[in-house]
Amino acid sequence: MHFASDNAGPVAPEIFRALEAANEGHAVAYGADAATQALEKKMQALFEAPDARMFLVASGTATNVLALATLTRPWETIYCHAQSHISVSECNAPEFYTAGAKLTLVEGPSGKIDPAALDAALAATSTDQLPDTRKGPVSLTQVTDLGAVYSIDEIRAVTSVAAARGCACHMDGARFANALVALGCSPADMTWRAGIDALSFGGTKNGLMGAEAVLFFDPSKAYDFEHRRRRGAHLLSKQRFLAAQYEAYLSGDLWLELAAKANRAGALLAEAVRSIGGAQLLHPADANMLFVEWPAEVDTRLRKAGAVFYGQGAAENGRCRARLVTNWATRDADIQRFREVACG
Amino acid sequence: MHFASDNAGPVAPEIFRALEAANEGHAVAYGADAATQALEKKMQALFEAPDARMFLVASGTATNVLALATLTRPWETIYCHAQSHISVSECNAPEFYTAGAKLTLVEGPSGKIDPAALDAALAATSTDQLPDTRKGPVSLTQVTDLGAVYSIDEIRAVTSVAAARGCACHMDGARFANALVALGCSPADMTWRAGIDALSFGGTKNGLMGAEAVLFFDPSKAYDFEHRRRRGAHLLSKQRFLAAQYEAYLSGDLWLELAAKANRAGALLAEAVRSIGGAQLLHPADANMLFVEWPAEVDTRLRKAGAVFYGQGAAENGRCRARLVTNWATRDADIQRFREVACG
Amino acid sequence: MHFASDNAGPVAPEIFRALEAANEGHAVAYGADAATQALEKKMQALFEAPDARMFLVASGTATNVLALATLTRPWETIYCHAQSHISVSECNAPEFYTAGAKLTLVEGPSGKIDPAALDAALAATSTDQLPDTRKGPVSLTQVTDLGAVYSIDEIRAVTSVAAARGCACHMDGARFANALVALGCSPADMTWRAGIDALSFGGTKNGLMGAEAVLFFDPSKAYDFEHRRRRGAHLLSKQRFLAAQYEAYLSGDLWLELAAKANRAGALLAEAVRSIGGAQLLHPADANMLFVEWPAEVDTRLRKAGAVFYGQGAAENGRCRARLVTNWATRDADIQRFREVACG
Amino acid sequence: MHFASDNAGPVAPEIFRALEAANEGHAVAYGADAATQALEKKMQALFEAPDARMFLVASGTATNVLALATLTRPWETIYCHAQSHISVSECNAPEFYTAGAKLTLVEGPSGKIDPAALDAALAATSTDQLPDTRKGPVSLTQVTDLGAVYSIDEIRAVTSVAAARGCACHMDGARFANALVALGCSPADMTWRAGIDALSFGGTKNGLMGAEAVLFFDPSKAYDFEHRRRRGAHLLSKQRFLAAQYEAYLSGDLWLELAAKANRAGALLAEAVRSIGGAQLLHPADANMLFVEWPAEVDTRLRKAGAVFYGQGAAENGRCRARLVTNWATRDADIQRFREVACG
Repeated sequence: MHFASDNAGPVAPEIFRALEAANEGHAVAYGADAATQALEKKMQALFEAPDARMFLVASGTATNVLALATLTRPWETIYCHAQSHISVSECNAPEFYTAGAKLTLVEGPSGKIDPAALDAALAATSTDQLPDTRKGPVSLTQVTDLGAVYSIDEIRAVTSVAAARGCACHMDGARFANALVALGCSPADMTWRAGIDALSFGGTKNGLMGAEAVLFFDPSKAYDFEHRRRRGAHLLSKQRFLAAQYEAYLSGDLWLELAAKANRAGALLAEAVRSIGGAQLLHPADANMLFVEWPAEVDTRLRKAGAVFYGQGAAENGRCRARLVTNWATRDADIQRFREVACG
Repeated sequence: MHFASDNAGPVAPEIFRALEAANEGHAVAYGADAATQALEKKMQALFEAPDARMFLVASGTATNVLALATLTRPWETIYCHAQSHISVSECNAPEFYTAGAKLTLVEGPSGKIDPAALDAALAATSTDQLPDTRKGPVSLTQVTDLGAVYSIDEIRAVTSVAAARGCACHMDGARFANALVALGCSPADMTWRAGIDALSFGGTKNGLMGAEAVLFFDPSKAYDFEHRRRRGAHLLSKQRFLAAQYEAYLSGDLWLELAAKANRAGALLAEAVRSIGGAQLLHPADANMLFVEWPAEVDTRLRKAGAVFYGQGAAENGRCRARLVTNWATRDADIQRFREVACG
Repeated sequence: MHFASDNAGPVAPEIFRALEAANEGHAVAYGADAATQALEKKMQALFEAPDARMFLVASGTATNVLALATLTRPWETIYCHAQSHISVSECNAPEFYTAGAKLTLVEGPSGKIDPAALDAALAATSTDQLPDTRKGPVSLTQVTDLGAVYSIDEIRAVTSVAAARGCACHMDGARFANALVALGCSPADMTWRAGIDALSFGGTKNGLMGAEAVLFFDPSKAYDFEHRRRRGAHLLSKQRFLAAQYEAYLSGDLWLELAAKANRAGALLAEAVRSIGGAQLLHPADANMLFVEWPAEVDTRLRKAGAVFYGQGAAENGRCRARLVTNWATRDADIQRFREVACG
Repeated sequence: MHFASDNAGPVAPEIFRALEAANEGHAVAYGADAATQALEKKMQALFEAPDARMFLVASGTATNVLALATLTRPWETIYCHAQSHISVSECNAPEFYTAGAKLTLVEGPSGKIDPAALDAALAATSTDQLPDTRKGPVSLTQVTDLGAVYSIDEIRAVTSVAAARGCACHMDGARFANALVALGCSPADMTWRAGIDALSFGGTKNGLMGAEAVLFFDPSKAYDFEHRRRRGAHLLSKQRFLAAQYEAYLSGDLWLELAAKANRAGALLAEAVRSIGGAQLLHPADANMLFVEWPAEVDTRLRKAGAVFYGQGAAENGRCRARLVTNWATRDADIQRFREVACG
């Protein structure tokens, strides 16, 4: 019963086989290898974006902050949700990589940026002649940090507000595959066709060992990004092992199958939660991440039985909150046991 | 005939087996896993330093710049060799991670810092009352960036100059195992007993897939380092796969065996170079990296025959320079063929 | 009728005389001059803080960001009011000088930090084992950016919340003299005795030509501050002309007299506003800065008559908002004329 | 006998009168004042550069680092003389303001960049496909930090090497007027006509109270510069007092007269040095700054007699080195006395 994070899940066996295959012979270091170059072409085809540029790094935070730093001047502010990973969980990495840009926090339900609130925040940013903090990019998270999935129209509502003010848009897609499966749309539909300029296309949470991609649909950003990656110490010498993971991930729809399993487990777990007396889902459980509030005794019972998950602070009246995340390897039996223990 | 870099070499099979073994079940993310904690204990034993703190990241540059940033204030200068990786090959990452500290370049033969030149550079740094650039740490590279290995006495000569001026010492040990095998000494002898405070303990160039360690012999540096790693986006979620690589690497002397193979291939290759008419080793080939100058036609012949290596600029009189690196998987047959082609 | 800013007011004649007197002969540059050293002693006496360290710079933003950077690690967050100058008007200078620390915005009436909201924000900052954004200093502004003055008890309510969480406190005293006159207390009472660790002690808004001071009540911060000032390019060569301004400012209670004149003008202006039909003071006008909402036609009438002041955006229903600031040289006749024009 | 620095000299009386005149009435803060705007026009005329943009700050280091940061990406390196102020005396401010760019030190006689050495340094900077430290601007200092003055041809020799490699050129003109008077040429001849793109046009060392200008001959740099100035906390509220200083400085050739006096004093002092037995000028004394080596007893005699100047470290054989600087107010009588004391 391990629901702490999809990061805690195992690597898909196909990925191991790909890594071993990539180990044959020698390969030039630092991303000039054939595997990385072939993968970029594969991504361009997948996203129907023949000019897109792709970059690989080992950490999801690196994808976010390198992409954002490429889009942001140091005197600008990045607009993001108050609960977004870049604001809450990256230890000031966005401020560091942008050389001191600011984050402006925008509210909205279940981790989704409210377009009207965004518009108000953009409008409030100085347009004086006097130099002052200026508008930078908007960053939205899909699946949101509270487990909800933006519909295409909801993404467009955000990006069109941004575009009307001249701002670029970044998507933190740490759980990109989970969102895509939830919506049943194409990668292009959920990104550039919906107004996204740069994408953090995560893999580690969905069965990779440690590989994350950035896509710029505008290739003119590539030169800057490459230098930012290098000085950020994120250009790995043995890039071919990052490329191999994505190559396998994107082959034969493996990535979508893994995400579908995680989402199915998420739906089962949500159903289980609904069956617990006094339990409540705090946000739509659209993919593989649930936020719940339940009686403290349920929490205690689960932990005693060995369930692993993060608490989210105490609620009032003897209740408490928790986050539950499933992954491609979550077993039905574990969800069943969770239900039994929780229901007492 | 692939002599471009030890980075281009394959991953040792033992590492793959360890990665697969680490994939069983779930593990808490971000380094709180049991494997990382057990590895730290193993490193403490190996280095005879029970208080040492260990950190894992995916890139060698990250080990250098995170360790140096932890030891350096933004108004200080880091003393390093003019040919050091941190000066020549890290795209200003040290300046970035230290928030703007400076590098002071010191000369010395074959990539080794000359102690007298270091002392002069330290003496020349301001000690005025007026605030000005101040002395920061000294960073030396073992194996040097020109392929030589410092003796223990040579390391001590550098660190004692630094200590006399109150400066900490960092060792860039991207090829730590190769140096250790060359000297035949213990890890403690080559580090803290010789005056080293922080170590970049490389693994990727010696058969790992992508894992690098930092050791601080002074555990009081750990808090800062952890925050610098996180905001640098270098704390990986699936740390257990970094830990698994090092665990296997350090088990049963695998790391020393791999390095011994690379060094032996380096020695064979050096012998081959000496047999080429008009060829010359520019620096002592103490480990697995050779710098050569030879007639341009030798260079051409080798490249035509498929040899891969980095040029180092044109020398005069129809001669040119190159760098050749062996690794644990370099085959004798390739060296033999290299010799035959080169000798014409 | 110039109410745009106290920055727009003239320099007091005593300051000019002091500058000319300081011009006799030569003086050592960069703050090692006798005048700067004598001034520090004078400040120590004035603040009843014999160990305090004083630093002079030319800009108020520099005092804030250098003081805050000295108190803040790059992975920390600074707590400040959502309307504070450091958040709204310094073009990301705090983020720049701290190498990427974050600001956490706290609400409260009329620019005053609400202690309970501060406590909630401090409590919400991570205390996980995992490295994450950590608690940094609290910065409060006295006079607030909305014209109100904290009572001593109100300052203590904020600083005691901070102290209970282990956080240092900074006061942005750009209008320090105006607040002091409003409260009628001593400099020590309004600062270190009320829990303030570092003070931006402004002068330019109150009749100086361009001089601002920082005081650290804890002298152990001096070394860092001096280096941050120098690398920030804020150590002026001809410091003696900054020192001369403060020397004259603090002599014979000139500074308090200037502030008393500005506050008196502020009170008169507030009275005038209250007499305008449909006009409303949005915040307590405790010192020399007023925020008003009034009918658009009042606004238009005043501007046509030559009044200068900053608008604060349109309000609803044909009303609009403005900021009015008086200074030591504001003439009663101008206030009288303002009243006449405004009342129509 | 005060030869420590031209910074230690007095402010010219004309400057005081201008400051008092500027104090009439109110003026809008932060550089939107009429005086600043009129001054920019005056500078454009003076430099025969109608599109040039001008910015005022209070410190010379600020002019250098803000100008350079505007011209430099964080992954670039700035080429400058090994003895330049930006390398030796600014406490890592260039690295700070550029967010971590590097300085590459170039040698040359008497503080002048040797064009061939510059070309070699530029050629050695990576042009690999791999992202790495890239070429940034060249910065030269006129008067050099060792007291020499580049001829126009010498400036052109440097800037043409830079231009051939695609690099912009910055001139640190902390002693711009002294150089101009020494060469007897026009401001345009010594700057943009000679290939200079951005100029630090100093005033404080030549009789101002504290005002320094930056000129960009390419106005497209203005937007960035303005934001860098603001976030660097270098946009002063009472800009009109900076503008007033320059307005008076440039009126009726005051600036050239002040510099001519300083240079004349420098020439007299050089003559005096030449008359001292065993004394030697180490560099051409082209303007108002001398570097001397003389017997230690001369040094001692002068200091005992009250002469003030900076030592430059001990030379061998009972000799020592010193720097002597004159300014517009240096009295002939002091130079005469210097000669008498020194000659013993």
